[in-house]
Amino acid sequence: MKKIDGGITAPKGFLAADTAAGIKYKDRRDMAMIFSEKPCRAAGTFTKNVVKAAPVKWDREIVENGPFVQAVVVNAGIANACTGEEGMSYCKETAEKAGELLNIPEDAVLVASTGVIGMQLPMDKISKGIEDMVPKLSHTRDAAHTASLAIMTTDTHEKEVAAEFEVDGVTCTIGGMCKGSGMIHPDMCTMLSFLATDAAISKELLLEALKEDIVDTYNMVSVDGDTSTNDTVLLLANGMAGNTEITKKDKGYAAFKEALNYINTTLAKEMAGDGEGATALFEVKVMGAESKEQARVLSRSAVSSNLVKAAVYGHDANCGRILCAFGYSGAEFDPEKIDLFYESAAGKIQVVKDGAALKFDEELAERILSEPVVSAIADFKSGEFDATAWGCDLTYDYIKINADYRS
Amino acid sequence: MKKIDGGITAPKGFLAADTAAGIKYKDRRDMAMIFSEKPCRAAGTFTKNVVKAAPVKWDREIVENGPFVQAVVVNAGIANACTGEEGMSYCKETAEKAGELLNIPEDAVLVASTGVIGMQLPMDKISKGIEDMVPKLSHTRDAAHTASLAIMTTDTHEKEVAAEFEVDGVTCTIGGMCKGSGMIHPDMCTMLSFLATDAAISKELLLEALKEDIVDTYNMVSVDGDTSTNDTVLLLANGMAGNTEITKKDKGYAAFKEALNYINTTLAKEMAGDGEGATALFEVKVMGAESKEQARVLSRSAVSSNLVKAAVYGHDANCGRILCAFGYSGAEFDPEKIDLFYESAAGKIQVVKDGAALKFDEELAERILSEPVVSAIADFKSGEFDATAWGCDLTYDYIKINADYRS
Repeated sequence: MKKIDGGITAPKGFLAADTAAGIKYKDRRDMAMIFSEKPCRAAGTFTKNVVKAAPVKWDREIVENGPFVQAVVVNAGIANACTGEEGMSYCKETAEKAGELLNIPEDAVLVASTGVIGMQLPMDKISKGIEDMVPKLSHTRDAAHTASLAIMTTDTHEKEVAAEFEVDGVTCTIGGMCKGSGMIHPDMCTMLSFLATDAAISKELLLEALKEDIVDTYNMVSVDGDTSTNDTVLLLANGMAGNTEITKKDKGYAAFKEALNYINTTLAKEMAGDGEGATALFEVKVMGAESKEQARVLSRSAVSSNLVKAAVYGHDANCGRILCAFGYSGAEFDPEKIDLFYESAAGKIQVVKDGAALKFDEELAERILSEPVVSAIADFKSGEFDATAWGCDLTYDYIKINADYRS
Repeated sequence: MKKIDGGITAPKGFLAADTAAGIKYKDRRDMAMIFSEKPCRAAGTFTKNVVKAAPVKWDREIVENGPFVQAVVVNAGIANACTGEEGMSYCKETAEKAGELLNIPEDAVLVASTGVIGMQLPMDKISKGIEDMVPKLSHTRDAAHTASLAIMTTDTHEKEVAAEFEVDGVTCTIGGMCKGSGMIHPDMCTMLSFLATDAAISKELLLEALKEDIVDTYNMVSVDGDTSTNDTVLLLANGMAGNTEITKKDKGYAAFKEALNYINTTLAKEMAGDGEGATALFEVKVMGAESKEQARVLSRSAVSSNLVKAAVYGHDANCGRILCAFGYSGAEFDPEKIDLFYESAAGKIQVVKDGAALKFDEELAERILSEPVVSAIADFKSGEFDATAWGCDLTYDYIKINADYRS
C-alpha cells in the first residue's frame, strides 16, 4: 500500500463538484456531488439510532436492493431528520433531479444530509444547487478538495485521504472524505464518510470488508457520546482500475483491506481530533485485555467520559477518572492488575501500577498532556488483546458551539 | 406523611457532628460523623462500578454481614479509591479509632469518602478529626445542618430533608442528607446519601424498600454520565420511635415507603439541580411508554446527552437532540408516534408531533427554557408507563471545575 495525495477523485472515473446553495450557511460551500463515469457496486453502513434521518432510509434501501449506484448528493446545514413524510419526499425529489441531469436512474443516486435536526430542506435551493454542480463535475484534485470543504458543518478543517494498492499487478486507488465534529459517537458507522475505489470487487466482499473495518475505525471514535440520526459510510467501487475482479479472500483482497483500513483510520482520527471545540486528539490504548471486544469497550468508555475529557483539557493527569470510566464500562476485569501511562511527543510517564495510583512527576505529566496528541495507555495484564479509541478534550468551545447551534 | 424541617438528626436518637480536619480543603468543614444512641439495622446500596473505593468494600461487608451499625464517619476531599491495600487499611483504622472513642465495636462503624481518586488519606488528620467530633455529637438541628455542609465537595449548597409518617398510630421520623455535584450517574445508588429513621422495621424490609426506591430516585439522576467509584446510599433504622416493628407489607410499611420516596426524590432532585456548573434543573418526563424500564431508559438517555444539556444551557428548544438521544438509548420504539413538549414556570409549548418537528413560537420557547427548572415531556403514545429523570445543563463552569479539579 502507498499513501498518495488526493481525496474522493483519486480513483479512476470519479468526479466531484460543489456549490454554495445557501441552504443554511451564508457565503460558503454547502452542497457537494460525487459522480462515477461507470456504475458502481456500493456498500454502506448506517446509524443504529432508532430515529433515522430520511436520507439514511433512502440510501439503505438503494445500497441493499438497488442494482447499482452512480452518484451521491450531499448537503450540509440541515440533517433532514425528524421531518416525517415531507422529508422522505425530498430525498426522492433530490435523486430525481440529479438523475435527470446526469442521465442516470433516480435509484442510482444516493443522498446525504448533515446539520440541524427537525428542519425541512429548502427544495428550491437544493434543486438549484444540483443544476449548478452537474456542469462543474471534475476529476481534478481541486474538485475533491472543495467538495470536502462543502460537506463540513462545525468542522474546522476538511478531511481527505487517498492510497494506492496492487491487485494482481494492477495498481488500484482508493480515496475518501468525511465530516465529523459534533454528535459523534458512531454506532456501526459515523457521521458522513464517502469512500471511492476503482478496484473491481464483488459486492459481497465490498460490504464484508467495510463492515469489518468500521468496527476498529469509525466505531472507536467519540466526540460527545451522542450517536447521530444521520451516521453514514458509503463505499463505491467502479472497477475502472482494470484489475481482475476480487471475488475471494486472496492477496488482492488483503491489499484492498489494508488500504481501506488506512483510509478509515486516517479519517476517524482526523474526525476525533477535530471534535467540536477540541484542542487535542486524545487516544486511549487498551492492552492485555481478555478479548478484542473487552479492549474496545474499555477504551471507548474512557475516551467518552466527560470528566476524563475535561481533565485532558486542563492538562491534568487525573488517572482516577480513567480507571473510574473503565469500571463503569460494563466490562468485567480485575482493577488491581491495571498499569496506566500517559504518552505524547513530550515523553511517557507511569501513573498507576497494579490498580493503585503512583506518586509521579506532576510537571512532566503536565508537559505530556499539553501536546496536541495525547495517549493514555492502559495495560490490563490479563490477555493478548488490544484496541485504541479516539476522542478529544471537552472545552469551553464545545459548549459555546452547542449552546446556540441552531441560531 | 408530613414534610418537616430537619435533616439527619430529625429521627429520635440520631446525633451528628463535623469538623475542619484539613484533609484537602483549607478553612472549611470536611469531616462529619453520624451516631445513633441505639444499634441500628442498616441497609445499603453501592456503586456497580468494577473499580470500587475502599470504603465501599468496607461498608458492603458490614451492611451485609455485620450484626448492627451505630456510626458513620465521612470525609470530603479524598475518595480513597484506587488506593490498594493501604486504602483498605485506612478504613479499618478509621473504624477502630471511632469505635474506641464511641465505645462500640469497630464493625459497627461505617466509613464514606468523596473527592479525588488515587490519593491516600492523611490518617493523622482523620484520626484527629474523629477526636474532635466525638465530644461535639449533638441532636440539634444545627448539628445536622453543619454535617450536611461538611460532606460537600464541589456542591454549591447542602442537601437535607426530613419527614414524619405514622405506623400504627405512632409517629416515626425519617431524615437524610446527601452530596452530589460531579461524577454523578448513579448505577444502583448515588454518590453519598445518608438516611436515618427511628422506625422499627425488619432488616429484610429495610433493604427491600431501599433497593426498590433508588431505582426511581437516585438512579434517575445524571450530571455527567460518569458512574463514581464511591456511590453509596446508607439507611439506618434504630427503632426508637417505639412503633410495633414493621415486619410485613402492611399500612405501616406503605407509610414508610412513601416517606422514604419523598426523602430520596427530594435529595435526588437537589443533587441534579446542583450538578457541577449547573444553572438549571432539567427534567425529562417520558409518558406512554410500553414498560416502566423503557420509560426509565429513554428519560435517562435524554437527560444524560451532552448536546441536549448544552442546548438547555443555551435556552435552545432543540427538539432534534432529544429525539436523537431517545433513538440511541437502546430502547426500541416507533419514532413516528412521539409528541414532545417543553414546560416550566413560564409556560408549556409543543415542539414535535408524531415524530416530526413543528414550527413553534421561538420566543416563548426561549422564555420557557430560561427558567431555573425546565421539563421536557415526551409522550410515546404506546403504553401506560411513565418515568422521570433529572439532570442539569452543561456549562462553561462544569469544564472550569473539572479541568483543574486536582489542583
